[in-house]
Amino acid sequence: MTATLGRLNHVGVATPSIAKSVETYRLLLGATAIGEPFDLPAQGVKVCFIDAPNTQIELIEPYDESSPIAGFLRKNPAGGQHHVCFEVADISAAVADLKAKGATVLGEPRIGAHGTPIVFVHPKDFGGMLVELMETPGDTGAH
Amino acid sequence: MTATLGRLNHVGVATPSIAKSVETYRLLLGATAIGEPFDLPAQGVKVCFIDAPNTQIELIEPYDESSPIAGFLRKNPAGGQHHVCFEVADISAAVADLKAKGATVLGEPRIGAHGTPIVFVHPKDFGGMLVELMETPGDTGAH
Repeated sequence: MTATLGRLNHVGVATPSIAKSVETYRLLLGATAIGEPFDLPAQGVKVCFIDAPNTQIELIEPYDESSPIAGFLRKNPAGGQHHVCFEVADISAAVADLKAKGATVLGEPRIGAHGTPIVFVHPKDFGGMLVELMETPGDTGAH
Repeated sequence: MTATLGRLNHVGVATPSIAKSVETYRLLLGATAIGEPFDLPAQGVKVCFIDAPNTQIELIEPYDESSPIAGFLRKNPAGGQHHVCFEVADISAAVADLKAKGATVLGEPRIGAHGTPIVFVHPKDFGGMLVELMETPGDTGAH
């Protein structure tokens, strides 16, 4: 089975402070649909979604020093774009397809911020860009 | 006037080879709506748009060694996420609003890849993320 490019669920943006980033988006871009930040301790991050009309920005802050995001912020102290997330209809089929084509899928699918299975693919397979695949949520988040 | 967060027109992704990146998106993600690459010599780049159902990926390759993208690729030889582009209703109003709020707008608006005025805002104003603002095109590109 070959996947079809799905919708861009979100752009993941690392930040040393979700609170500060939220104020920036509110002040400079007029963002109003801003979710409550919440912890994903299993993934070592706190996240907060900001809705654009057609997709979301996922602000990501380290949960603690062992967070994978902490390493990103050591290299990029101000923060920056971290990953893009595309939706797929069936995460197991997508993983099998990617592996068959030689891509490096990072670990097993796990439940992500929208409550459906997600998995990351190594940036070396996508021209230096970290790609997250997310099984399409029932509620897409952006309306 | 305060802006309202507009739709994410595209994610800009730098690449040393549009041709190679297009093959990656086709093979690994099933992309089918892939535009013809074209040159924007005034901006020092070649670009190619790939449609996702709700937005676009803009692949950006240096036009020559003086390209601003050439510097990005020296730091990130494989490529990577370069900017995000949000639509605004009125670029002049958006620029005036951003300047009034102390943001660093990079140069004057100029015509961008979709034929409407665009401008970039310094990454220091957006937590390390380069933000492009684009006056909403008549044809939004992604359908």
